[in-house]
Amino acid sequence: MKILHTLILAMAVTGTASAADWQALPDNAPAPADNPTTPARVELGKMLYMDPRFSSTGTVSCNSCHNVMEGGDDSRSVSMGVHGKTGGRNAPTVWNSAFHSVQFWDGRAASLEDQAKGPVANPVEMGMSDVDEAMARVIAIPGYKPYFEEAFGPDSMTVDNAAKAVAAFERTLITPNSAYDRYVKGDKQAMTEQQVRGMNTFESTGCVACHSGAAFNGPAMKAGEGFYAKFPTFADSDYVARHRLDQDKGRAEVTGKDADTNMFRVTTLRNITDTAPYFHNGSVNDLHEAVRIMAKTQLNRDLADGDVDDIVAFLAALTGEYPEITMPRLPATPGKSLVADQ
Amino acid sequence: MKILHTLILAMAVTGTASAADWQALPDNAPAPADNPTTPARVELGKMLYMDPRFSSTGTVSCNSCHNVMEGGDDSRSVSMGVHGKTGGRNAPTVWNSAFHSVQFWDGRAASLEDQAKGPVANPVEMGMSDVDEAMARVIAIPGYKPYFEEAFGPDSMTVDNAAKAVAAFERTLITPNSAYDRYVKGDKQAMTEQQVRGMNTFESTGCVACHSGAAFNGPAMKAGEGFYAKFPTFADSDYVARHRLDQDKGRAEVTGKDADTNMFRVTTLRNITDTAPYFHNGSVNDLHEAVRIMAKTQLNRDLADGDVDDIVAFLAALTGEYPEITMPRLPATPGKSLVADQ
Repeated sequence: MKILHTLILAMAVTGTASAADWQALPDNAPAPADNPTTPARVELGKMLYMDPRFSSTGTVSCNSCHNVMEGGDDSRSVSMGVHGKTGGRNAPTVWNSAFHSVQFWDGRAASLEDQAKGPVANPVEMGMSDVDEAMARVIAIPGYKPYFEEAFGPDSMTVDNAAKAVAAFERTLITPNSAYDRYVKGDKQAMTEQQVRGMNTFESTGCVACHSGAAFNGPAMKAGEGFYAKFPTFADSDYVARHRLDQDKGRAEVTGKDADTNMFRVTTLRNITDTAPYFHNGSVNDLHEAVRIMAKTQLNRDLADGDVDDIVAFLAALTGEYPEITMPRLPATPGKSLVADQ
Repeated sequence: MKILHTLILAMAVTGTASAADWQALPDNAPAPADNPTTPARVELGKMLYMDPRFSSTGTVSCNSCHNVMEGGDDSRSVSMGVHGKTGGRNAPTVWNSAFHSVQFWDGRAASLEDQAKGPVANPVEMGMSDVDEAMARVIAIPGYKPYFEEAFGPDSMTVDNAAKAVAAFERTLITPNSAYDRYVKGDKQAMTEQQVRGMNTFESTGCVACHSGAAFNGPAMKAGEGFYAKFPTFADSDYVARHRLDQDKGRAEVTGKDADTNMFRVTTLRNITDTAPYFHNGSVNDLHEAVRIMAKTQLNRDLADGDVDDIVAFLAALTGEYPEITMPRLPATPGKSLVADQ
């Protein structure tokens, strides 16, 4: 270990990172064959994503908890939906979610299209009875019709197409050109010495066992097949009780299988500086502490403070460029509101 | 009356409106001498306006209730603030609010700058203890500092400057080039025959007694001096009880004077098709009914259905062009959220 550490330090001094398979973020996300990312679908999806009228109270849109003006989440431990209700899990970032092969912490949605239908009918999120009730609101807004026609053809105002449009918009939410991306593309000045050092420590500590690939969320998987890890793996750490890390059964809630207890989708580390607080329950509001806990509960490693600092510096290099987004104009229901007394 | 009506119909047929002082909406709003509408102030103001972190829960921004993607309001009878709490009055539109000489339904703020400080500390809106607590959040976000410096110079992170920035942004929220504006500027094809007829009926019925001027909110007033009307004036209408129109004491709540009972600021009619439901308590969710009620309670007139239809058609001609707005990027607090467990 001493030798490895020395070696890494030597490499850091010369500004050369380790030999792991470091990948830059692609500029475009893959799309399913039946939902190409066309401009018309993206535009409609952006409107639906921003429109709060598809929540029971008319106050909660997709963007309320997955705010694209911020890190694609809501800065809260657990999100706040209609009537101030709260759920049990932290809102995952929407940025680069297109690079996840499954959606939600427990991977219960096989695609962005499937995911988009979930929060609408969740009583602590958007609070509609079901997606059809939400779709009835969409249909009641005359200004949406031409956008559906442009995106999907005539008579296309369906739940599936609405979900496709939202997914198409989400596939454009990519943050390329981080310092890390520029570094691995050859600009050796793009990261600081500390960030390069952190990159090597990130690898040598073992973080890359799960957080690999362009989005740092694991190996390439077939769409709909998730890459999961048990969290916590080393459950006897003090951290586990302190942050209730084993209380959420994770994927076992979906599958009912004991083997899936505490299994969670390995989440992207892209833009992680902008998505505090951390973990599935949002229980840790400090990136340094989150790194320390992950090393202990996943790798049984006690990181030195300097190593934590270096890894955090490296993680900051994963924060990319957020594309500029123009606000959509949400079509009115002239002279009559759909949500006046909700 | 018969003769007047005939005369108006004749005028409508020739496409000529009546001789009232019909004014187009200016392209720019006046600004106070100490707060010029500079690009730097507008940009900062837009960020503060969109940022939900200055509410106690981190979920409510100015834009939550005054949504510039919609009609500048929230489509609800009364707004929903933190923890799902609701207030007693309908959210006025932020669009063209720069043309109001006072702010709030009861005119209790003499300027947009004063208004901006109000909702932050309202327990049923943004729910902070006071504006200083909200300002402490702004100051805790390092990324805001350069924007304040650019807009106001060094050491300028104060409540007053934050309010000035928000006001500067709001002064850019103007919707020119409505069909009505093009009509009064000389394009006689800009409004339909029905809209011209409605314009004349709007005048002959007496609506212009209050709803005059470019913003249809009354005569030009000195900044800080409001133009108020008693609503309801004719309080013996069935409408009053049905919609609880006399329950809110209006400006008397501010001044404590009996003479101000049920006095409300005369509000703009610009974009009124996009701001249902209507009135200070949002009790009427139909523009036709709102027109009928106003005629009865303010002018003691029972409008024929055709006249209501015509006036509503005219009001639709007041809906202008909403400028394109780019979403601001809200600066992060890297690795640590300000609102994780609020």
